[in-house]
Amino acid sequence: MAERLRLMPGAEIPETMLGIGDDAAVIERREGPPLLFTIDSMVEDVHFLPDIPAEYAGYKALAINASDIAAMGGRPLAALVSFVAPRQTDVEWLDAVYDGFAQAASFLETPLLGGDTAVGPRIVLTVAMLGSCPDTAPVLRSGARPGDVVCVTGRFGGATGGLRILAMERLIRKPEEDYGHPGLRLLDRHLKPQPRLEAGRRLAKAGATAMIDVSDGLVADLGHVCERSGVKMTVEAMSVPIDVDLEAVADKVTHNVLETALTGGEDFELAVTLPPDAFKKAAAAVKGTGIPLTRIGVVEDAASREGDDVLVLQDGEPVRFAQPGWIHFEGK
Amino acid sequence: MAERLRLMPGAEIPETMLGIGDDAAVIERREGPPLLFTIDSMVEDVHFLPDIPAEYAGYKALAINASDIAAMGGRPLAALVSFVAPRQTDVEWLDAVYDGFAQAASFLETPLLGGDTAVGPRIVLTVAMLGSCPDTAPVLRSGARPGDVVCVTGRFGGATGGLRILAMERLIRKPEEDYGHPGLRLLDRHLKPQPRLEAGRRLAKAGATAMIDVSDGLVADLGHVCERSGVKMTVEAMSVPIDVDLEAVADKVTHNVLETALTGGEDFELAVTLPPDAFKKAAAAVKGTGIPLTRIGVVEDAASREGDDVLVLQDGEPVRFAQPGWIHFEGK
Repeated sequence: MAERLRLMPGAEIPETMLGIGDDAAVIERREGPPLLFTIDSMVEDVHFLPDIPAEYAGYKALAINASDIAAMGGRPLAALVSFVAPRQTDVEWLDAVYDGFAQAASFLETPLLGGDTAVGPRIVLTVAMLGSCPDTAPVLRSGARPGDVVCVTGRFGGATGGLRILAMERLIRKPEEDYGHPGLRLLDRHLKPQPRLEAGRRLAKAGATAMIDVSDGLVADLGHVCERSGVKMTVEAMSVPIDVDLEAVADKVTHNVLETALTGGEDFELAVTLPPDAFKKAAAAVKGTGIPLTRIGVVEDAASREGDDVLVLQDGEPVRFAQPGWIHFEGK
Repeated sequence: MAERLRLMPGAEIPETMLGIGDDAAVIERREGPPLLFTIDSMVEDVHFLPDIPAEYAGYKALAINASDIAAMGGRPLAALVSFVAPRQTDVEWLDAVYDGFAQAASFLETPLLGGDTAVGPRIVLTVAMLGSCPDTAPVLRSGARPGDVVCVTGRFGGATGGLRILAMERLIRKPEEDYGHPGLRLLDRHLKPQPRLEAGRRLAKAGATAMIDVSDGLVADLGHVCERSGVKMTVEAMSVPIDVDLEAVADKVTHNVLETALTGGEDFELAVTLPPDAFKKAAAAVKGTGIPLTRIGVVEDAASREGDDVLVLQDGEPVRFAQPGWIHFEGK
């Protein structure tokens, strides 16, 4: 379905605009830096469980859009919200969602200019965000070149660990006792993602050739870059940084830490390709934001080998996963 | 609820931005003309009946956003769609919605850059639209001044007439036989609203002091202008132009043509205030787009009289309506 949206007929898309096959659409203007434009909906029961504290739903609706802006190397400019809710929705719950919007707007320094409200059978929070790229051209998914190194910010698997604890806690409800502080931090990784805005801009300045935010899962999202760039990648599994809190409680939340890190979605870290000689400068720049940049693989010519676009190696052997990542409605 | 969105805390709204208490939010930029930013959701069973031809739902989702841009005197720049639908939604239905998106994008000359798709229990179509005001400052709801004349584009009540025919036709299904060509045109007024983009820009250039698109109902929407401008208005009921097709089939679709015209929503005409000496030029400019501009009332000082913000007179007597317009979830 998203594919159809990408190939939408109707008013022709001018050459100065790029459809949203990327993290955000790009609108070049005669005056001023290019604009970034993105939209994302969160549906109750699909994207969030209705019994999480409501402020997390509000927070996350803004944060996931900001992450799309981060993946282009941009800065959020303003956001609007469309809030669909049943008529009988509890007012305290609504207020808590607004608190979450406010927290995210403040944290992301993104003015929330208001929006639209409507009655509907189930909660749907849709955020549209406008951003700009004041210092560099937007970094697209399509720019990865053979010979580039594949890098990631931060650590992986934490959001999935948090989601699993949340699902189990719906039955038992004492995460601190069962999982200690690592468990609480994993919950936070799932409920309060931190878009890598500053890191994204620094990576853009350091010469990133392609970038994406990891929402579907690392292997799946690297696959999106390969598809748009017309390249393949080889990733060294043991190089992928694992969330330390996930490792601390691994025996309670996953059968396979590596699989969780490589295919679990919603870590909202950035995956980026860089010319090899740009890595050192990029890593130093990202480190200045308090998170690591780690080299995990290389970009290859599409014709250089057969098989999957993203080849994951462990001890020289290919690793295969049942699913490379979160499968969207009719594929995204 | 919309009131809360307007007063959203969080990141402070810079002085160069105007929250969406207006038809669209305004973002002033150092470089280039101001940007307009708006979002609107259409929910199945609330904003459209699931058995209308699906392309109308797609068309209307874009058109109602363009109408918000029109009411600021702007021009659409680009749009994004978020499409929430149940997993089992019929593919032909989805395709028809996309056809409607494409028709509207082409008609409105608005590139649809793509968007987001998600699974949900019921269809929700959310459109975010970006516009700009290349030639004038954005026309706000807050600029009406005592002494201004109150004017409207086009004719009123047609969309409500169409909605009533549609509701009745769910039982009988032969609109042409029952209502003739006027009935078909009323259906079109409901299903395919024509945002007054060109008229809006010409009114802005002609010196419009305040403007709004009539979505809630004429009296209700004039009330929004009064509230934001701190003024009152007196409207001469018999001056309000009635849809000729509504008049032609009036006995079949309404008990009170005047009430339908003054309080029925979704005509998506523009209501505008102008300094008296600007009316003639404005009317000539709007006539060039093929629709009339009609003077229907005057703007008054808020302290000049007691009572309702919008006073409707017929033969010198106040007219009262059970409801001034469409009542949104917790008020809009």
